[in-house]
Amino acid sequence: MIGDPLPTEKLEGQLLPKKLALPIFASDPLSSVAYAPQELLMILMIGGLAFLSLAPWVALAVVVLLITVVVSYRQLIKAYPSGGGDYEVAHKNLGEKAGLVVAAALLVDYVMTVVVSVASGVDNIISAFPELNPFRVELAVVFVILLAAVNLRGVSESSKAFAIPTYLFIGSVAVMIVTGLLRAFVGDAPVAESAQYAVQAENLTHAAIVLLLLRSFASGCSALTGVEAISNGVPAFRVPKVKNAQQTLVIMGVTAILLFAGLTALALISNVHYAENPCHLIGWAECATEPQRSLIAQVAAATFGDNTIFFFVIQAATALVLLLAANTAFNGFPLLGSVLARDGYAPKALSTRGDRLIFSNGVLILALAACVILVVFQANLTVLIQLYIIGVFVSFTLGQAGMVKHWLRELTSPKKRKGDERMTRAAIMRALVINFVGALMTASVLIVVTITKFTHGAWIVFVMMPILFVLMLGVHRYYRDVEREIAVDATTTFGAQGDHAIVLVGRMQKPVLKALDYAIAAQHASIEAVHISLDDEATKRLKKDWVKQNIHVHLRILNSPYRDMTYPLIQYLKERRAEHGSEVVTIYMPQYIVGHWWEALLHNHKARRVRQKLMLVHGVTVTLVPWLLDSSDVLYGRRSRPLPGQDRRGEPVRPVARRPHVKAPAKPRR
Amino acid sequence: MIGDPLPTEKLEGQLLPKKLALPIFASDPLSSVAYAPQELLMILMIGGLAFLSLAPWVALAVVVLLITVVVSYRQLIKAYPSGGGDYEVAHKNLGEKAGLVVAAALLVDYVMTVVVSVASGVDNIISAFPELNPFRVELAVVFVILLAAVNLRGVSESSKAFAIPTYLFIGSVAVMIVTGLLRAFVGDAPVAESAQYAVQAENLTHAAIVLLLLRSFASGCSALTGVEAISNGVPAFRVPKVKNAQQTLVIMGVTAILLFAGLTALALISNVHYAENPCHLIGWAECATEPQRSLIAQVAAATFGDNTIFFFVIQAATALVLLLAANTAFNGFPLLGSVLARDGYAPKALSTRGDRLIFSNGVLILALAACVILVVFQANLTVLIQLYIIGVFVSFTLGQAGMVKHWLRELTSPKKRKGDERMTRAAIMRALVINFVGALMTASVLIVVTITKFTHGAWIVFVMMPILFVLMLGVHRYYRDVEREIAVDATTTFGAQGDHAIVLVGRMQKPVLKALDYAIAAQHASIEAVHISLDDEATKRLKKDWVKQNIHVHLRILNSPYRDMTYPLIQYLKERRAEHGSEVVTIYMPQYIVGHWWEALLHNHKARRVRQKLMLVHGVTVTLVPWLLDSSDVLYGRRSRPLPGQDRRGEPVRPVARRPHVKAPAKPRR
Repeated sequence: MIGDPLPTEKLEGQLLPKKLALPIFASDPLSSVAYAPQELLMILMIGGLAFLSLAPWVALAVVVLLITVVVSYRQLIKAYPSGGGDYEVAHKNLGEKAGLVVAAALLVDYVMTVVVSVASGVDNIISAFPELNPFRVELAVVFVILLAAVNLRGVSESSKAFAIPTYLFIGSVAVMIVTGLLRAFVGDAPVAESAQYAVQAENLTHAAIVLLLLRSFASGCSALTGVEAISNGVPAFRVPKVKNAQQTLVIMGVTAILLFAGLTALALISNVHYAENPCHLIGWAECATEPQRSLIAQVAAATFGDNTIFFFVIQAATALVLLLAANTAFNGFPLLGSVLARDGYAPKALSTRGDRLIFSNGVLILALAACVILVVFQANLTVLIQLYIIGVFVSFTLGQAGMVKHWLRELTSPKKRKGDERMTRAAIMRALVINFVGALMTASVLIVVTITKFTHGAWIVFVMMPILFVLMLGVHRYYRDVEREIAVDATTTFGAQGDHAIVLVGRMQKPVLKALDYAIAAQHASIEAVHISLDDEATKRLKKDWVKQNIHVHLRILNSPYRDMTYPLIQYLKERRAEHGSEVVTIYMPQYIVGHWWEALLHNHKARRVRQKLMLVHGVTVTLVPWLLDSSDVLYGRRSRPLPGQDRRGEPVRPVARRPHVKAPAKPRR
Repeated sequence: MIGDPLPTEKLEGQLLPKKLALPIFASDPLSSVAYAPQELLMILMIGGLAFLSLAPWVALAVVVLLITVVVSYRQLIKAYPSGGGDYEVAHKNLGEKAGLVVAAALLVDYVMTVVVSVASGVDNIISAFPELNPFRVELAVVFVILLAAVNLRGVSESSKAFAIPTYLFIGSVAVMIVTGLLRAFVGDAPVAESAQYAVQAENLTHAAIVLLLLRSFASGCSALTGVEAISNGVPAFRVPKVKNAQQTLVIMGVTAILLFAGLTALALISNVHYAENPCHLIGWAECATEPQRSLIAQVAAATFGDNTIFFFVIQAATALVLLLAANTAFNGFPLLGSVLARDGYAPKALSTRGDRLIFSNGVLILALAACVILVVFQANLTVLIQLYIIGVFVSFTLGQAGMVKHWLRELTSPKKRKGDERMTRAAIMRALVINFVGALMTASVLIVVTITKFTHGAWIVFVMMPILFVLMLGVHRYYRDVEREIAVDATTTFGAQGDHAIVLVGRMQKPVLKALDYAIAAQHASIEAVHISLDDEATKRLKKDWVKQNIHVHLRILNSPYRDMTYPLIQYLKERRAEHGSEVVTIYMPQYIVGHWWEALLHNHKARRVRQKLMLVHGVTVTLVPWLLDSSDVLYGRRSRPLPGQDRRGEPVRPVARRPHVKAPAKPRR
C-alpha cells in the first residue's frame, strides 16, 4: 500500500529541482492567501462596514511585514544552509533553551499548518458543494489520513503528484484578479452574493477601535505563515542549494504579495461581507442552516459567475493548494523530529527512517495530532487560525534574534571563509540591519498577536509550548544521564564464570525441539531442560514424550502449586546462584515469528511476560530461538520448514565429543 | 494506584458470601427497575395518554416473563455450576457455533450493560443536579474509567465498597413505593411535575397500535437484563455454591418483580408523563434547554417533595446501584473472555491474570468499548436500550434451548449421579417443561424485540454479533492450524552443528562489555565481536577503546555504505553459512531494562528492529543480555550496579582453559 522499500542510495535521487521545490515549499505561504484576506476583513467588519475603508492600510502593513520577513530569511538561508532553520539559528546563537522554544513553536506550527490548511481546504470544497456541510469534520480527518498515507510513500513521488495545483492556483487566481480589476476599470465591477447583507456592528470605544485594528492586522499576518518553510528545507534542494533556495524564496514572496494584495482589493471592490458568526449578516435568513461561503469562493462567483467552470477551477485549485500546504508540514515535521532526535531532545525512534526512507513515526504523530485538533475544534477555521499565528511568530522572532547575534559575532570575530564566500564588513552590517529590523518587527507583531489572540484560544498554544519544551528538555537530560551511567570507566572489571544452559519446555512441540537442538549445539558446560508443572496431566504426558523422543538431556520438573509460570523458576535460579556463584545461565525460549500484524496479538504474550521477569534475575541471559510459522512466508518468503538439520538429512554426522545424544526415535528407512 | 500484587493463593479468599453476592450480581437486574418502567411507559405515550390504561397489562406480561426466566435459570445453575452460563450450555448442547453466537451476544451484552447502566446512572444524577446536563457524556466516560480502575484492584475489595448501595436502593425504593401507595390510598395521591403537560399523540392505524404495544413490551423487557449474571458467576459463590446461587437468584427475582411492579404503579398513579422527545410534552417551554427528569426522579419528587433529603437519597441510591450494575459487567466480561481464551476462541492474552489476579486485558477492552459507544451515542439512554435487549434475548433463548436439549438427553441416557444428586424421571420432565416454556417465551420475545427495535438502532447489534462470531471462529481455526504446524511428528529430526558467537558492538559502553563478558563465559567454540561501521570517526574511536580495554576477542568491522544496521550483518551471516554449513550462530545484544513505562519509548527501538531482522536468518538465535538501568531500581529494587563480577572482586579467579583473556587495563591498587 505504501510502495516497495527503497534502498538508501535513492536518497540523492529524491532531491528537488526548483520547479518542483516551489510547489512543495511555496504552497504553504501561497495558500495562506486563501484565508488571510478573509480573516483580516472579517475582524474589521466586527466594527461595522465603515471600518472596511481602513482595510487597504492594514493590508499594506501585512505586505510590508511580509517583505521584511522574506528578506530576513534570504540571509538566514545563506548563513545556515543545513536545514535546521530557526531552530538551528536560535540553538547555535541564543543557546539550548531558546532553540527548544523555537522547536516547540515549530512543532505546534507544523501541526497547525496541517489543521488550518485542511480546514480551509474543506471550507472551500464546501463553498463549491454546500451539501457536504454536515461532513466538515469527517472530510478534514479523511484528508489528513490521505496526506499521511501519501507521505509514507516518500518525498519525490508526492511532489510530482502535487506540482500542478500550485501553478494552477497561482495562474487561476491571477487570472481572476486581473479579470475582476479590468471589469471594475470598465465600470462593470463584480458584486459578491453577500454584498446585499449589512453586518451587525458592535459599538466600540476608542481603545476598542485600536484593538480591533490590531486584531485585524494580526489575523492578516496569517498570510506570513509558511515563509520559513524554505529555510527548513534547503538540504532538499539540488545544488547550488543556497542559491536555488534563495531564488525560490524571492519568487514565492513576490507571488504571495501580488496574490494577497490583489485578492484583498477584489474582495473590497466586490463588497464581500463576511462575518465571524454568519447570523450577524443582517438579512440572511438561512444563516443557521446554510454554510457561509469562503471569501475566495464569493469573489470567484462574483467575477466569473456562480457555478461556472471558472468558479469550480478556482475552488479546486484553492482546495488542492491548501492540501499541498498541509503536505509541507508532512515534509517538515518529521525532519525537525529527526533533527531533535539526533540532538537527543526527542525519542530516538523519530530518527529512524522507515522502509521507504521516510521518518515514518514523525508522519504518524503529526497525522494523529492534527486529527485530534480537527475533531476537538470541529474544523472551525477562525478559531484554529488564532492558535496558528502565535507559534509562527515565536519562531520568526527568535530566529531573527539569533541571526542578529550571528552577525554581531561575525563583526567581532569573523569566520575564515574561502574566496567568494568572504563577506565585507559593509555586507555584514547590511545583513545585521536587515535581520535587526526583521526581529524588531516580528517581535512587535508577536506582542500584538499575543494580546489580541490570547483570550480567543491562543492560550492553548501557551500551554502546549511549555509542555513540549519541558518534555524535550527532560528527554535530553534523561539520555545524558543514561549515557553517563553506561560509560566505561576505570573501575569497570569483568569475570562472570561458569556456564549453564536451561531450555524452557512447555509441551513437546517442534519449536521446543529446535530450541533444545540449538542449546545442545552451543556446547554449554552443562545443560538441562526445565518444565514448570502447572497441570499434572500435562507433565505426565511430557515425561512420556521425552522418553519416546529419546532425548538425553535431563528434564527437571519444577512444581508450581499456585499456577505461576515464573516464580518457581526464579527460585530455582536463585538457589543455583547461591550454590554456583556468579555463573551465567542462558535460558533458551522459542519465539514465534509471524506473517501478519494481527497474529502478533495471538502469540508470545506469556513468553514475553516470562522473559521480562527472568531478565531481572542476576546472571541470566535469554536466548530467543526463532520459529518461523508458515504464515511468515507471506512476509519474509521463508518457512519454518525444513527443520534445522532436515536440509542435511543423510549427510554423514561428524562426531562431537562433549555433545549429549539427541535424536528422533530410530525408524527403519526404506 | 491499583494496589499491591496478590499471590495466587488469595483467590479462594476472594469468594463471595451470599450477602455480598446479592449486591454484586443482583445489582444488574435490580437496577433495570431504574429504566424499564420509564421506557415501557414512554413508548406507550407515543400513542397518547389514553394508551396508559394498557400499561398494567404490558407490565404484567413483563412480570410473567421475568418469573419464567428466573425459574429457568434456577435449573441452569444446578445443571451447569461451572460459571460458563448460557455460553457453556449452548456450546455443550447445541454445538460450537451456537456457543459462539451466545458468546458474541454476551460480549455485546456486557458492553451494553456498562453503557446503559452508566448512561442511566448519569441521567439520574442530572435529574438531581440539572446544572450538570452539559457534561452528560463526560460524566459517563469518567464513571467508566473509575469502574475500570476499581476493577483492576480485584473482586473482593470492590464488592465490599459496593455492598451498601444495593441494599440502600432496595430499601429506599420500597419505602417510596409504600409511602406513595399509602398516600394514594388515603386520597392524597402524589402528583408528578410532568402531570400538567399533555403528550403529542401520533395517529395510529390498528396495525401500528399492535406494534406499539409490542414495542412497549419489548422496552419493558429491559427489566430482565442481568438475570443471567448469577448463572455466569456461580464459581464466585462460597460453598455450597449451587444452593447459594439459586437462593440468591430467587431473592433477586422476587425483589425485582416487587420493585418493577410497584414503581410502574406509582408512576401511573402520580401521572408521570415522559416523552422520547421532550418537546413533545405539550406546554413545557424549556424542553430544548432543560433536561427531562428520569421517571424515578419524578416519582420521588412527587412522593417525598422535590429537593428533600429523601429525594436525594433515592437519586443517590439509584445512581449508585446503576454503577454497581455496570460493575457486574466488569466482573463478567473478563471472566467470559478468559473462558473463551481457554477454549481457544479469543487471544490467549485474555486468560492471563494480572498482578492483582484480575484478567486485566478484559477489563481494559470492556472499558474502552463502553467509552466509545457512550461517546458515539452521546449517552442517550433510549437509543442505547434498543441495542441492549437484542443481545440479552439471544443468549436467553439459546441458553434455554440448550437446557431443553440437556434434559432430553438426560431422559434418554441419564448420567450416573451420586445419592442425593440423582433425579427422578418426573423431576427431569418437570425441568424439561420449565426450560421449554422459557425457551419458547424468550424466543417469542426475541422475535418481537427484533421486529420492533431493528430500525431503532438494533441493526448495529446485528452487525457486531456476526463480526465477533467470525472473529472468534477465525481465532480458533488459527490456533488449531498453528497447533498442527508445531506438533512433533515422526519425521522430526535434529542435527544443528557448529557453534559460533557474535557480540554486536556499537560503542564502548558497559552494557556491551557485559554482553561480551557473558558471551565469553558461555564458552562458544568460536567468538568474535562485530561492529557495523556507519561512521568512520566512531569506528576509529571504538578500535582505540578496544585496544585500551585490552580485549582479546577479535573485532570485525563490517562497512555499511548505505548506513543500514542489518544488511551487512545479514550478508556476513549468509556467507558464513555458505562456508560452515548449518552452524548455530548466537548473536549477543544488550537489552535495556527500565523502571518507567515512558522510558520504554526512549530505548531499544533500533535494537528491536535489528533483532527482528536477524531472527529471520537461518541458524541464528539472539541472546538478550539484560542491562538494568538505575531507574529500574524504582520498579524492581535491583540496580545495574554492581557489574557482573564486581561483587566478587578480589576472589581468586579459577583458571578456565579455553577462555580468551579479557580484563580491564591493569591499575595499581592501593
